[in-house]
Amino acid sequence: MGQFVEMLEENRHAELRAMMIAMNPVDVADELEGVEEPDKQLLIFSMLPKDQAAAVFTYLPSDLQRQVVDGISKHRLSLILKELPVDDAVDFLEELPANMVNAILSQAEPTKRGEINKILQYPDYSAGSLMTVEYVILSEKLTAREALDNVRRQGGGKETIYTCYVVGEGRKLTGAVSLRRLILSPEDSLVRDIMTTSVIYVHTLEDQEEVAEKFKDYDLIVMPVVDREDRLVGIITVDDIIDVIEAENTEDFEKMAALHPSEDEYLKTGILRLARNRIVWLLVLMISATFTGAIISHFQELLQTAVFLAAFIPMLMDTGGNCGAQASTLVIRGMAIGEIELQHWLQVFWKEIRVGVLVGIGLALVNFLRIFFLVKNADLRTNLTVTVTLFITIVFAKLIGGALPMAAKCLRCDPALMASPMITTIVDAFSLFIYFSIAHLLLA
Amino acid sequence: MGQFVEMLEENRHAELRAMMIAMNPVDVADELEGVEEPDKQLLIFSMLPKDQAAAVFTYLPSDLQRQVVDGISKHRLSLILKELPVDDAVDFLEELPANMVNAILSQAEPTKRGEINKILQYPDYSAGSLMTVEYVILSEKLTAREALDNVRRQGGGKETIYTCYVVGEGRKLTGAVSLRRLILSPEDSLVRDIMTTSVIYVHTLEDQEEVAEKFKDYDLIVMPVVDREDRLVGIITVDDIIDVIEAENTEDFEKMAALHPSEDEYLKTGILRLARNRIVWLLVLMISATFTGAIISHFQELLQTAVFLAAFIPMLMDTGGNCGAQASTLVIRGMAIGEIELQHWLQVFWKEIRVGVLVGIGLALVNFLRIFFLVKNADLRTNLTVTVTLFITIVFAKLIGGALPMAAKCLRCDPALMASPMITTIVDAFSLFIYFSIAHLLLA
Repeated sequence: MGQFVEMLEENRHAELRAMMIAMNPVDVADELEGVEEPDKQLLIFSMLPKDQAAAVFTYLPSDLQRQVVDGISKHRLSLILKELPVDDAVDFLEELPANMVNAILSQAEPTKRGEINKILQYPDYSAGSLMTVEYVILSEKLTAREALDNVRRQGGGKETIYTCYVVGEGRKLTGAVSLRRLILSPEDSLVRDIMTTSVIYVHTLEDQEEVAEKFKDYDLIVMPVVDREDRLVGIITVDDIIDVIEAENTEDFEKMAALHPSEDEYLKTGILRLARNRIVWLLVLMISATFTGAIISHFQELLQTAVFLAAFIPMLMDTGGNCGAQASTLVIRGMAIGEIELQHWLQVFWKEIRVGVLVGIGLALVNFLRIFFLVKNADLRTNLTVTVTLFITIVFAKLIGGALPMAAKCLRCDPALMASPMITTIVDAFSLFIYFSIAHLLLA
Repeated sequence: MGQFVEMLEENRHAELRAMMIAMNPVDVADELEGVEEPDKQLLIFSMLPKDQAAAVFTYLPSDLQRQVVDGISKHRLSLILKELPVDDAVDFLEELPANMVNAILSQAEPTKRGEINKILQYPDYSAGSLMTVEYVILSEKLTAREALDNVRRQGGGKETIYTCYVVGEGRKLTGAVSLRRLILSPEDSLVRDIMTTSVIYVHTLEDQEEVAEKFKDYDLIVMPVVDREDRLVGIITVDDIIDVIEAENTEDFEKMAALHPSEDEYLKTGILRLARNRIVWLLVLMISATFTGAIISHFQELLQTAVFLAAFIPMLMDTGGNCGAQASTLVIRGMAIGEIELQHWLQVFWKEIRVGVLVGIGLALVNFLRIFFLVKNADLRTNLTVTVTLFITIVFAKLIGGALPMAAKCLRCDPALMASPMITTIVDAFSLFIYFSIAHLLLA
């Protein structure tokens, strides 16, 4: 691991520099992160030529980026900033305190500063906040040959040159042409004739989740962003979309475990914040669970005369919760990836009822046999009480687990909130009510 | 919606055809799916020119693809198959019964047939099964200009021309050069001098999850695949990786809800299969929960004299389960996206213990006050029993929720199995044991 440090200490600077230039920037950043002394990290980083420095900088964790900003000269920093694609510069600046942002922006060249400022003003999680403004524009009157020359001239600093955009009057987006098409078409064909006019695009204020949907649906690697007047203002590339997809999935995992969603890395989040992200939902669910307790209190006299009933409570509660969690997870996930729509509600209900009956019969049978053969002093009536409750609980849990996420979506709430914790709480109350009601009938 | 059908019925065939050619294939496929009569679907599909037909075909759901295969002539099918990229052809063929696959393969041209067969033999979920064999190869001796001419000649049928690969003796991968680099470099520079030699690649048998990791780490849009002898055999493109990422996430969601993972769409899966995917884990967990019941049975005498204790069981069980689920979800997700490694176990334990204490104090306090002010006939000793149990349960749940996923990973099991359902079952048993033990001390 300590190869960088070793070479540094042995004064093999030229060799170290050559090695870092040949390495992938991601790996250089990884190695740098592993260097223990901050001074050495800075020294090694400063040995990189500025284009490689910019590339490595993008992949450093944000604390190390900040350290680099503090440690290296303003002049060198502005050189690196110049090499960074605008969207990466924005990501980095968003993490910094405002006064530092201003100090750095004052070092950037005016055009770049303008572009960065423009993007910083779009709301978080909007298409505008994801986009970069570095793309190639062509006129529809050019020939393929002229267009290629144009790409050569403009291309150097652009995020991608593989799709070029054609704009008309007032920068309105009129078409797109891939570099592939430009290269494979005869040299004298006109851009107008080889461009696609049915371009898939998004608006600046569209939510990043919808942007990701379009990328997935259309297998894109880049997509243009237009403003309210349909003017081309930027592009979004697929590498940023992969990050969006993972972040949205993490958010769903967190919501489904009754966690307040957070973008911070677990290991780098303080315990106070972790506790705060967890406690709100825990309190809500704890208070809700006391209603289930109230049901038991209500049947206290019955329980007094038949205290063995209590032994089956955990099994009924756990199984009900698990059955509900299975159904709700499938429905929530199905909605998240667009396989299940609201209009399918009847299909989902009908499916869950039938699955519930099947699963219910299976589990109830096993449970009946287990009690019959293995539980001493459990008479047939007790066994029937438990078994019938189990069956009803399972069917109810499946139905509620399938229905509540759809109801949430219908009310424009996030379906992920209707996951295991919430479903479990509801099913528990229902299950115990049924349990004691049947026991009251059969045993009292 | 029924625009296609309308135009068909009004005999506006030329217009319909022109419209479909101008549309994005994804949207044509969507519209086709919405057409109700199979005959009309087929008729409309057959109006597409063969390249657009191939593109639309890729986006049809698999049942409609099969219908198309059955309905159109073998000759036309072979024309479409010729236009399909190899990896899409493979995806489609994998869904078909073997005899149909052979019938179709016999229609494909020999080279394509060879390529498809080669990919079909790689194990599911391996890099080999994801790859396509259509890529551009260059020699390192070419100039940029000659290389571009080469791309023009080879490029037509390739999946991507944006990264070209350089191979040496015995097809060994020696470098890669992006089309961008080729275009922006001086025309007489040699491929050898402008190519990258530190190419990120995968082996054919590597798991698709690791392939996706590399795509994410290095922000790639295409990656070469090599065999055991480091010979270049294919490439993987980012659009297929996005599908892999979503599929892996779905699998985690399913495992974490005690579901047997399945690749089938929820709405299209039969109830028998759905029930089977759910029942195994439910049975395991149901049987496990009976141990928790056994703890209650063990303390039956105590419960007989203090039956009001039963009313707090649901609150203790639910809160313990939720606390454990929160911790395990964060750790499982952190490991899935590579933020948490096994070596961090001590950090995770220490964090969860402190978070557990914080959350435990908060919830225990609220619970104490609630019982004190709102629950009639609960004396201080009962209140203390519940509150202390709650606190201990929460700390234990956080610790177990953080520890078990890491233990699973350590034993090379999938950490996602140690999610909410399993953790809940374990925490429940622990919690009730503590509860009755403390009650025995304080109340007996």
